[in-house]
Amino acid sequence: MPELRKDIITREWVIIAKERSKRPGDFNHHRQEAAVVTSDHSVCPFCAGNENMTPPEIYALRDDYFKPDTKGWKVRVVPNRFPALGGGVPLNRRDIGIYDRMEGVGAHEVVIETPEHGKRFSDLSVEQIQDVLKVYQKRYSDLKAEPHLKYVLIFRNYGKVAGASIEHSHSQIIATPMIPQQVWVQVKGLEQYYEYRERCAYCHIIEEEIKEGTRVVTQNDSFLTLEPFASKYPFETWITPRKHRHTLLETGEEELKGLAEILKETLERIHICLSDPPYNIMFINAPWGHESLFHWHIEIIPRLTIAAGFELGTGIYINVVSPEDAAMYLKNVEVERK
Amino acid sequence: MPELRKDIITREWVIIAKERSKRPGDFNHHRQEAAVVTSDHSVCPFCAGNENMTPPEIYALRDDYFKPDTKGWKVRVVPNRFPALGGGVPLNRRDIGIYDRMEGVGAHEVVIETPEHGKRFSDLSVEQIQDVLKVYQKRYSDLKAEPHLKYVLIFRNYGKVAGASIEHSHSQIIATPMIPQQVWVQVKGLEQYYEYRERCAYCHIIEEEIKEGTRVVTQNDSFLTLEPFASKYPFETWITPRKHRHTLLETGEEELKGLAEILKETLERIHICLSDPPYNIMFINAPWGHESLFHWHIEIIPRLTIAAGFELGTGIYINVVSPEDAAMYLKNVEVERK
Repeated sequence: MPELRKDIITREWVIIAKERSKRPGDFNHHRQEAAVVTSDHSVCPFCAGNENMTPPEIYALRDDYFKPDTKGWKVRVVPNRFPALGGGVPLNRRDIGIYDRMEGVGAHEVVIETPEHGKRFSDLSVEQIQDVLKVYQKRYSDLKAEPHLKYVLIFRNYGKVAGASIEHSHSQIIATPMIPQQVWVQVKGLEQYYEYRERCAYCHIIEEEIKEGTRVVTQNDSFLTLEPFASKYPFETWITPRKHRHTLLETGEEELKGLAEILKETLERIHICLSDPPYNIMFINAPWGHESLFHWHIEIIPRLTIAAGFELGTGIYINVVSPEDAAMYLKNVEVERK
Repeated sequence: MPELRKDIITREWVIIAKERSKRPGDFNHHRQEAAVVTSDHSVCPFCAGNENMTPPEIYALRDDYFKPDTKGWKVRVVPNRFPALGGGVPLNRRDIGIYDRMEGVGAHEVVIETPEHGKRFSDLSVEQIQDVLKVYQKRYSDLKAEPHLKYVLIFRNYGKVAGASIEHSHSQIIATPMIPQQVWVQVKGLEQYYEYRERCAYCHIIEEEIKEGTRVVTQNDSFLTLEPFASKYPFETWITPRKHRHTLLETGEEELKGLAEILKETLERIHICLSDPPYNIMFINAPWGHESLFHWHIEIIPRLTIAAGFELGTGIYINVVSPEDAAMYLKNVEVERK
C-alpha cells in the first residue's frame, strides 16, 4: 500500500509509492534512449485481443453482445497495475513523531482510448473523442460517489518526456482522499477574487480574452481555447467552458461534441506547430464541497523546456515564449475544421 | 527587458523572457542529444584566459596584483548574458486590462566556481568550496542592500536534465522584486506552526530527526544532512544549520568551513550512489523583512524522475523511493571524510 505523507510546513502531501520502488542503480538518467517503448502489438497490454494482459476491467464502452475483458470495446477502463494510490477502506490518520501520514488509499485507473495501437489521441475522430469524454464523465461520477475520496484528476501524459511509459493512446484517473494543496490555492484565490469583485475570475478572464483577442486560439459555441496571460510554460494552453460550469459532469451531449471538436482541433494545432511535442493534459475540476465558485477547465502543457533550480526554488517560471506569440503561432496553423 | 506577470487566481508571478525568445521550431524536444555542450576550453566563456568572452565582472576573488577581467581569479561573478530579470530602476506596476504586470527588473548573475574546466563542484577542495560560499555571502549581502529587490535565490543546475547549458562548473544568483509565492507559503507555514507550537518547525524537525535517526545522512557540529519525511523527489536532500539561522549570511568563518565540508561530502555521496546524476541545488534563505521565524537551508534535488500530468495538475508528487531507504543508501556509500 502506498503512503501519503504531509509536509508540516507547506501542508503539501506527497505519495511514497513503495510498490513502484527503485534501487539507486535503476534510475536511467544516463540512458533515456534505452527506454523507448515497444510498438509490437502482441506485447501491448492495451491492444484489442490482449485484454488478459491487464487487471479485469472496471468499465468499458462496448456493444452489449461482447463480454467484459474480451474484444469489441471502444474505450476501456482498467486499474493501473502499479497504482500511485491503492484501493480499500481507509484507516484513520496516524502520526509518526511530529509528522502526519495516512495510508495511500484512493483510486488509479487507466482509460484506454482506442483499441487501435499507433493512433494518437488527436487522430481519433470527434465521435471517438466524445466517447472518451463520456467515459471520463462516467468514472468521475462513480468516484465522486465514494465517500472517502475528495478529489479526482483526469490526465494524459503524451511522449516519454511528459512521463508516458506506454505508447498506446491512454489517459489516467487518480482519485485522492484529500483536496490537493494546489487545488486549494485555486479555490482560495477564486473566493478572494469573488469577495473583491463579486464575480468568477475565470468568467472575467474569458470576457477579457474575447474582448482583447490576442491570446485566443480558437472558440466555438460552448468553449474557448486560450493562452493564459501568465503562462508558466511556452504554449501553455487552456480550454475552458464559456459558461460558469463547475465540473466536466455538467457538460451535456451537445456541448460534449463541441468539447471533443475543440480538443481535437487544439491538439492538432499543437502537434503541427510544435512538431508532435510531448505534452500533459489535465482536467481541472472543482473539488467536492467547493463547487460553487469553481470554473472547470482543461490545461495542456507542451513539455518543451526544463524546470531548473530557479523554478524549483521559487515556483516562478521563466517562460521564453509570450502567450501572445504562442497564440499567433497556433492560430496560423492550418487545420481542417468540421 | 523581461516582463513579470501575475496569475490573478493563484497570485503566482511568471517571467516572460522575450530576450530568450524562441520560435516554435527552435525547441529541440526531438533532439536532446544534439544539445551536448562543448568541452573545448578555447571556446568556453568561463575558462581562465577567456574573461573577455563574458560581460565585465561584478566581483571576483583574486589576488590584488591581478586586474579585473583578467586571469588570476579563484571565483568570478559576471552578469548572465541572457538575464531572466534585467537591471535598472523599476517603474511602477502597470495593469493591462484585468491583469497585473511589471517590468522584469532584478538581477541575474553567474558565479564561476573555478577557473578550471572539467572539475565538478564536488571535486573542488573544501577551501575552494568555502571560497564559493564566501562569494555567495558577498553577493547576497550586496543585493540585499538594493532597495527594490525583495528576494535572492542562489542555485546550481548540474547536468543537462537539470537545466545546465554550460558544462564549466558554475552557479547562479537571481534576485526578484517580490517575494516568490512559494517562499510565502513557507513563511506562512512557519508562522502557523509557531502560533500552534511556539517553536520553529525546522528546529523541531532537526531535533526529531536526530532522535529518530533513520533519515539522517551525515552531520557535523553545525550542520545536518537529511532526507525530509515528506520528500517530493527520490533522494531529495536537505542540508540545514542545527541552530536557528535565518540566512547564509549568519554563517561565520568556522561554520562556513563546516558547511563546505558537509556540502562536499553530501554531493560525493549522491554522485557515487546515483552514478553522477543531474541535480539542482537551491539555497533557501529568509525573505527580507520576514527573517525571524525563517530557518535557512539547502535543498538538493537529483533529477531522476519526470513530473507528469498528476504532479502538474495537483502538486502532489509521487516519490518512488522512501526517504528512509534513500538515507540508508546514501549513508552506506564510502567517502573519504576529513
